[in-house]
Amino acid sequence: MPSVKSLPFIVEAESHGLTDVLGFTCGASAADIRNKDDHSRLDTAIIYSEAPCTAAGTFTVNAFAAAPVLLCREALAKAKAFHGIIANSGNANACTGPVGMRDAVAMQKATATALKAPADSIFVCSTGRIGVPLPMPKIKTGITAACKVLAATPSAGLDAARAILTSDSREKVVTVRVPWKDKVISVAGIAKGAGMIEPGMATMFAFIATDAAVAQPLLTKLTRNGVHSSFNAITVDGDMSTNDTVLVLANGASGITVDTKQPALLAAFTAAVEHVCGVLADKIVSDGEKITKVAELLISGARNEKDAESIARAIGNSLLVKSSWFGGDPNWGRILDAAGYAGVALNPDKVHLAYRAADISAKPVPAFSKGKPLPANKPQWKQIVSAARFTILLDLGLGKSAYRLLSSDLTEGYVNYNKSE
Amino acid sequence: MPSVKSLPFIVEAESHGLTDVLGFTCGASAADIRNKDDHSRLDTAIIYSEAPCTAAGTFTVNAFAAAPVLLCREALAKAKAFHGIIANSGNANACTGPVGMRDAVAMQKATATALKAPADSIFVCSTGRIGVPLPMPKIKTGITAACKVLAATPSAGLDAARAILTSDSREKVVTVRVPWKDKVISVAGIAKGAGMIEPGMATMFAFIATDAAVAQPLLTKLTRNGVHSSFNAITVDGDMSTNDTVLVLANGASGITVDTKQPALLAAFTAAVEHVCGVLADKIVSDGEKITKVAELLISGARNEKDAESIARAIGNSLLVKSSWFGGDPNWGRILDAAGYAGVALNPDKVHLAYRAADISAKPVPAFSKGKPLPANKPQWKQIVSAARFTILLDLGLGKSAYRLLSSDLTEGYVNYNKSE
Repeated sequence: MPSVKSLPFIVEAESHGLTDVLGFTCGASAADIRNKDDHSRLDTAIIYSEAPCTAAGTFTVNAFAAAPVLLCREALAKAKAFHGIIANSGNANACTGPVGMRDAVAMQKATATALKAPADSIFVCSTGRIGVPLPMPKIKTGITAACKVLAATPSAGLDAARAILTSDSREKVVTVRVPWKDKVISVAGIAKGAGMIEPGMATMFAFIATDAAVAQPLLTKLTRNGVHSSFNAITVDGDMSTNDTVLVLANGASGITVDTKQPALLAAFTAAVEHVCGVLADKIVSDGEKITKVAELLISGARNEKDAESIARAIGNSLLVKSSWFGGDPNWGRILDAAGYAGVALNPDKVHLAYRAADISAKPVPAFSKGKPLPANKPQWKQIVSAARFTILLDLGLGKSAYRLLSSDLTEGYVNYNKSE
Repeated sequence: MPSVKSLPFIVEAESHGLTDVLGFTCGASAADIRNKDDHSRLDTAIIYSEAPCTAAGTFTVNAFAAAPVLLCREALAKAKAFHGIIANSGNANACTGPVGMRDAVAMQKATATALKAPADSIFVCSTGRIGVPLPMPKIKTGITAACKVLAATPSAGLDAARAILTSDSREKVVTVRVPWKDKVISVAGIAKGAGMIEPGMATMFAFIATDAAVAQPLLTKLTRNGVHSSFNAITVDGDMSTNDTVLVLANGASGITVDTKQPALLAAFTAAVEHVCGVLADKIVSDGEKITKVAELLISGARNEKDAESIARAIGNSLLVKSSWFGGDPNWGRILDAAGYAGVALNPDKVHLAYRAADISAKPVPAFSKGKPLPANKPQWKQIVSAARFTILLDLGLGKSAYRLLSSDLTEGYVNYNKSE
């Protein structure tokens, strides 16, 4: 990581999620949507700004996009001002036929009524089980309860971050501050993982709030850029869900406007949003279902970014490669094999593969260079890959483009966990 | 399966591999190439026809194609007549630098010398560990030993089928006879799996021999067609190896020439080759590493075959779907989710998904139809998927194209088996 001094923002040592941002309140409740195990588990979250927000979002590109995703897209296209998000876990409201859209609209209306806001100013997000209609009486009770406890407190922010989790083992929160003259902009985010993590985002939510004022077109551009190098650059199992959603809300409560007229501020804010996205994406992959290792793939020397990405995804999604990481076995042969079937023309004699400890200042240990394996280095690779996190550097030697992908190992625990619904 | 009567060929109840074909002899030896566990395990196979053969082949498209693959491609492009195959298991001779091609050429020469045949009439195939140079003294001893025991006996044919195996649990052999007037054409095949099974073939060998006389261009066409709907339409783990090879040798010993002048014979022979490819491909996926279930995916109603194939592969390679099969959990939601991210435009309201028992005459049980789940049928699906083999019928309702893919479940055993080299 670059040193903190070089960053144009400050990362809070302890984040409480979206209530760290001026003008945002959160509320959560336990509506027993799962109807199993812990019936008092938080499963309904409300995120609210009384001041109207601009908003931006990116969504799953799955052809079976769930009703709440369709409703969010519609709201973004139509409305000009937004006040919040209703999100539930335990049921994805996906693949349930026409009933799905009816229920998503009912959630939106119930939340809007409780918050005294226009219906289309509220985003609706659902995650969890696919194919089962939402238990609407419970959902409505949950919305009412969550709206009643809306607060700007740290515990309210953390409760909302917990209410959106499914198979995640912990809440995912991050807060950064961008000092500007005598004021400060806050940007905070919460997210959920943890399976179905792959391209174009996957069974994941990320909700980001800022008290900067940002016009919608600029916010949209910043969001797309931020998502590209973060949520779209992680993979746990290569599966992409029907419900993936990233939403960014900007309420202007800091009194600072971010626009192209002040390039230094814009650069600092852009870096802050990218950092928030990057930290949340990293937390998602690190908390992948039953994983034990995180592998950072840095593909360089490609003719173009698309080639580098194809190779990174072939490696990051190879079952043989991921199984070998689980076993703490470097197995560069499987990595090259996966690179070889990515559909990219390669010259083995130009390829250089090295392992590096997670610490960016660590020295890379080459395993294969210009067509030849370097078996003498094996004890050193083995040690690197035995850590919970490591980096694989693959230089194709063909050009100047690069791609970074965060991946995880494949474990017996993953298969066991996912073998039934 | 269609009834045997409707087929223009007879499937032998018991195959002995390539020695079932007139004029082909086989030999195998134990050269201890693995240098571990069972040192007397067969690992070197010779397949030989004294009469010169025409030949056709398809190979891995992996950018890191191993030296033996490059050598086979070269031989096919240059030579006109072929006499046999030298194949070893235990070491893939892949990613070993310039030494790899030198060793492959040495294998070819040693075999050609022992068989008194031109060097470029011999195909070389290696499978096993990647990245370690071949133990050439052992390899040469193995070649000499295998050539000495060359025979046309059933046991020689089965020994060769066993010598090419790696993590396979059993040999894969099939023989069919095409009666034609008062004569008969034989077509037999042997194959090996069992991990890295995916597109464009993967860590697999299939060697097919026939005593028909077939000109090389026609044999090439028949081989490509046969491979397309068989070896290229199976997936265990989505990985494609550096060494995949399908070779077909035709020596004409039956005295029957197959060409376009006799369309009925050509049709029967084509069907026989496709059957041999299909049976071997089925045996490969059924013997996938540590799998417990085989799922046949029949995607229909697509706008074109490519769309149907993309969807079949998305489903057949989804870790969530494959884990759910392992658990005997039908989980149609995960199947639709995977179909949804295949990059094909779909209309959920036209989709029809059903499960069917492996018996083709069994009645399909719909699970999702025209946008709506059919939960009442769940007990029936559960029963179907609890079997070791079942079919999933997914009709997209958009066109007339279809694709069939054989896939397998993902098991804890697979991960455990592959977590180290």
